[in-house]
Amino acid sequence: MNDRGPEPERLSFNQMTADHLSLEEVVEGCASTGIPWVGPWRHKLEPGSAALIQAAGLRVSSLCRGGFFPASSEAERSERDADNRRAVEEAAGLGTGVLVLVCGGARGPDLEDARAAVLRGIERLVPHAQDCGVALAIEPLHPMMVVERSVVVTLAQANSMAERFDPGRVGVVVDAYHVWWDPDIDREIARAGERILGFHVSDWLVPTTDLLAGRGMMGDGAIDLPRLRRRVDQAGYSGPIEVEVINPALAALPGGELVDRVRERYLAHA
Amino acid sequence: MNDRGPEPERLSFNQMTADHLSLEEVVEGCASTGIPWVGPWRHKLEPGSAALIQAAGLRVSSLCRGGFFPASSEAERSERDADNRRAVEEAAGLGTGVLVLVCGGARGPDLEDARAAVLRGIERLVPHAQDCGVALAIEPLHPMMVVERSVVVTLAQANSMAERFDPGRVGVVVDAYHVWWDPDIDREIARAGERILGFHVSDWLVPTTDLLAGRGMMGDGAIDLPRLRRRVDQAGYSGPIEVEVINPALAALPGGELVDRVRERYLAHA
Repeated sequence: MNDRGPEPERLSFNQMTADHLSLEEVVEGCASTGIPWVGPWRHKLEPGSAALIQAAGLRVSSLCRGGFFPASSEAERSERDADNRRAVEEAAGLGTGVLVLVCGGARGPDLEDARAAVLRGIERLVPHAQDCGVALAIEPLHPMMVVERSVVVTLAQANSMAERFDPGRVGVVVDAYHVWWDPDIDREIARAGERILGFHVSDWLVPTTDLLAGRGMMGDGAIDLPRLRRRVDQAGYSGPIEVEVINPALAALPGGELVDRVRERYLAHA
Repeated sequence: MNDRGPEPERLSFNQMTADHLSLEEVVEGCASTGIPWVGPWRHKLEPGSAALIQAAGLRVSSLCRGGFFPASSEAERSERDADNRRAVEEAAGLGTGVLVLVCGGARGPDLEDARAAVLRGIERLVPHAQDCGVALAIEPLHPMMVVERSVVVTLAQANSMAERFDPGRVGVVVDAYHVWWDPDIDREIARAGERILGFHVSDWLVPTTDLLAGRGMMGDGAIDLPRLRRRVDQAGYSGPIEVEVINPALAALPGGELVDRVRERYLAHA
């Protein structure tokens, strides 16, 4: 297998890796370290964000996040739909063609109901996303997050949902942290093929002490990231690779040091 | 669907629900509360355990646990094999035909290697288990336990492994806590059919604050246990249902109260 390695030009810094920093600080750090892509989160966006990113010479790999489709009432559903349409517009405004969907957790005992609600929510969002030139990227999350974050928990499930739509409209994100345990991961990465709209890396710490914010920097944990990256590359994906390490301990690092470490660990371990 | 309910005569008290108590205390509690089955763990067994259980009029639903097949050296593998053969003999000595296998976690970056080691380990154990009249029950664990506890993380995977052997020799355990999130769970329970050798219940707490010992009592969490129980029953399983709640907070309850609560919650929520 021809291994291109983790090319520096594919590295993207996902905002959540430095949730304690402003978008401006992240953009500055990336520009001065030679990280060419950034993956912002919506809660850090401001009116001048697109111009700020562009002026620094960076590009936006994706916007996090839309989704959270299962709702407890019609009113809540309408509110979510409107917010998801805004998310699509914000992605377009940032010049990225990818909106990451964290699909939402269960709102009651019936996971199948919630999964059907996710599919219906995506169906309602697709036309507006198409108008805006933004593809929706379903991100399966780790099964331990099924109640709070996402009833979509395997790449097989995300693929099956995405395949109901045209390839240019709905795809998937492969986040190593969420899917590395899956016995079917090779098959499902190959199946996803051109629908892969993003590849995220971080590491699984042993022991994991926090279900939501206990991720590790690449090289500190158990995931064979180069193996997964090669599978994703083989499937035809050649886009940016986002480093998304959600761990509050990283906030203790000065911004510049954190950005340096992301780049160094990406090159050595992704 | 004809729902028989969680019949009292199927209730089994898994030892780990009361790891702070001796087997004698658990047996006494079950006998006085009318719980007919007990699921002991090997670390609580003593020479007189089988007689103790029998004298109290209880039966053993399964023995926990064999497994932990992936090893770092030949010596370690031989030691594990010998220990697994002893586990089989202990199960037979307790009068149960079921040894639960917790298959073991990854010992390096390659999950496929570890999974192959599990299969080879089961192959080596089957002849002795057959001689002793004990079936091996592969228990898939939650994917968050893939490094420390089990590289077998889905029922599909456990079924595929079990199907390499005669149905009477190798089967699966369906533990609600470990598999409830799985989009394919209905299909895989039906597929398991006569290979289902055990059904375990507890609940998924929200939030889950501990990956290994943060389970809830039935009714305190998010799992639709009656739905899973009906699927397991439909698949043809009519054996004991083990309550296995691993949570150190339960150790604060006096033994009698804990046993009462297990019975009450089982009848109301399983």
